[in-house]
Amino acid sequence: MKDGKKDEKGKDGKSRKVLEGFGEEIVDEIRSKRGPKFNTLARTKSNITFDEKKGFLTVGKNMEERSFINIAQSKRFMQTIAIANKCHKFIIENLHTSIRGLFYQLKYSLGEDVDENIFSEQSESNPLIEDLEASLGIRREDLNLNATRKGVLVGNMKVMDTFGGEKIEIDASRMGRSGWAIPSDVDNEIEFVGVKAKYVLVVEKDAIWQRLNEDGFWKKENCILLTPGGQATRGTRRMIRKFADMGLPVYVFNDGDAWGWYIYWTIKTGSINLAYIGGDIATPEARFIGVTMSDLEKYDFLKKMTLKASDVDLKRAQEMLNYPWINRHKEWVEELKLVLKLKQKLEQDTLQGPRLTFVGDYIREKIRNRDFLP
Amino acid sequence: MKDGKKDEKGKDGKSRKVLEGFGEEIVDEIRSKRGPKFNTLARTKSNITFDEKKGFLTVGKNMEERSFINIAQSKRFMQTIAIANKCHKFIIENLHTSIRGLFYQLKYSLGEDVDENIFSEQSESNPLIEDLEASLGIRREDLNLNATRKGVLVGNMKVMDTFGGEKIEIDASRMGRSGWAIPSDVDNEIEFVGVKAKYVLVVEKDAIWQRLNEDGFWKKENCILLTPGGQATRGTRRMIRKFADMGLPVYVFNDGDAWGWYIYWTIKTGSINLAYIGGDIATPEARFIGVTMSDLEKYDFLKKMTLKASDVDLKRAQEMLNYPWINRHKEWVEELKLVLKLKQKLEQDTLQGPRLTFVGDYIREKIRNRDFLP
Repeated sequence: MKDGKKDEKGKDGKSRKVLEGFGEEIVDEIRSKRGPKFNTLARTKSNITFDEKKGFLTVGKNMEERSFINIAQSKRFMQTIAIANKCHKFIIENLHTSIRGLFYQLKYSLGEDVDENIFSEQSESNPLIEDLEASLGIRREDLNLNATRKGVLVGNMKVMDTFGGEKIEIDASRMGRSGWAIPSDVDNEIEFVGVKAKYVLVVEKDAIWQRLNEDGFWKKENCILLTPGGQATRGTRRMIRKFADMGLPVYVFNDGDAWGWYIYWTIKTGSINLAYIGGDIATPEARFIGVTMSDLEKYDFLKKMTLKASDVDLKRAQEMLNYPWINRHKEWVEELKLVLKLKQKLEQDTLQGPRLTFVGDYIREKIRNRDFLP
Repeated sequence: MKDGKKDEKGKDGKSRKVLEGFGEEIVDEIRSKRGPKFNTLARTKSNITFDEKKGFLTVGKNMEERSFINIAQSKRFMQTIAIANKCHKFIIENLHTSIRGLFYQLKYSLGEDVDENIFSEQSESNPLIEDLEASLGIRREDLNLNATRKGVLVGNMKVMDTFGGEKIEIDASRMGRSGWAIPSDVDNEIEFVGVKAKYVLVVEKDAIWQRLNEDGFWKKENCILLTPGGQATRGTRRMIRKFADMGLPVYVFNDGDAWGWYIYWTIKTGSINLAYIGGDIATPEARFIGVTMSDLEKYDFLKKMTLKASDVDLKRAQEMLNYPWINRHKEWVEELKLVLKLKQKLEQDTLQGPRLTFVGDYIREKIRNRDFLP
């Protein structure tokens, strides 16, 4: 799955065949009077590991069986089959929906035949979609299920979007103040061409993205300027992974606080929730530009710009020191210990203090000196 | 301010002059040994009224004085002058920032001269920016202060964005799956040309926008398809107002619940917080397409698709019945009473139940029959 090649993953290709193979196996089992069942990767905490070599959170080899004849599982089994059936239909129709839309389709179709609703809450259907993803080695996006989208980018590159029966070329360097909105699915029927940028700069806050865009930072530096607008969605994380696959260094510029660190580590090592697709969305190559507590030593004015760290910030810093994928980096141990000692934090917005354009100068200097955290 | 003409409002024009006039008056008062002061529109609840004729929330005539020699006000007065001074500088530099960026500039510059910070919390500076807006008859966007942006549109129109020293033409009908991201400021250095759409369809959720965009709904109907992505930002509300000024009908398609109603009424009549710029951002011409409780009578399948209304939904419905700008519409009184009686709600996503493309058919039928709430 790591390369996300269209010919393998495209919805007319692999995912439809995989769903059909899945259905045929179930039918075979019924015909041969075996209880229908399937296996999925266990997504329990005990089966989630940090792959030291690859550098991201992934699932281990433990499998779990979902069986129809197990009374405790038969409802969930039936629900999963219903989901697979709907997704197969969406793929054939060549239409997409959200998991909320899927929920209502299930509510509707069962409502006609049986009295009881197949799902009363969407929270019931979400883990079953993950079961399918983990069992079939297919991502939700390949099942024509859109995830939330957020995030914007600008830079010297073109997007070739095959959409609505047309091939549309979008020039991501001609988007003015708006930028190109990163869609839910950046793999199927979409291509990125002419990516000549030297690196990707990920900026936590849209406000700072707007600041840097106005300065033409991405033009002067020839970089891709991207903001996830807070925590990165699946689509944005996948987009960053794809840039890294193209050989572009990825630098992340966030607040120096609990939320900023969390956003960074989610981009870099993936998250526990999505460890089963870790290879598709984690970017271990990412580096943290700042803002850091050690910046206080380098930029004198910052000493007057700190805010008091909140309890959440301090608790998070302490927790992070316990994560093996973080505490193996001595630079992060130093940074987090400094946070705990000073009980202060810094926002990326502070860099606008001396002058609005200082933000770009800070980033340039950091990159020139290769002054980032791993 | 209502027309938002560039020649009057552009940052090189009116807003700079207004700020300079404001400064000169303060200086005159000091020179003539009067205590410097200025007046601003009172934004207290008692001064906020619903203008029945115009159809939006606005501020009355009550003014409040901000005086330097009033000890209770002198700190706030000084802070407001500092904000005006910074914004004047931003306008001359032709650079924008967020109110967070402004906060840090103030923190920085005073930090050099005096020991005490001019602001310790951003919450102190926000009402002062509103003081300035209301006093000078200028919007934050004209002071080069970006607000949060969110919201996306697609349709047969072009955006002429003068940005970064270039005039960039963006074709909003060639944005593929992404759409054009609505910026914070849609008045200054930006123009909309070739808007040939018949109406504007505002869709609460981005997921439903994606659904309709995939169906090519806006192409078939020749409409502008816009999602605020939840509550509409200042920029998106201003964009909708501008479309209405171009003579386009505005239809809003939301969930039939507390949040969906709130989003609609904010677009239509404005909000109490922003009543002082009500004329710029409210669109009284907007109509509510649904989803409504009376849809249960028209679309049989919906009876199986309702969710239990939450306490918040019921409380909100009751409150809305007390608002004079809502209860003057008998259709809304009926709708809200039905909600309170049935204690149910409907999401816009339900319309995907029978088939994914049903959403568009529902909207088409509603518009054809002019079946909307006022």
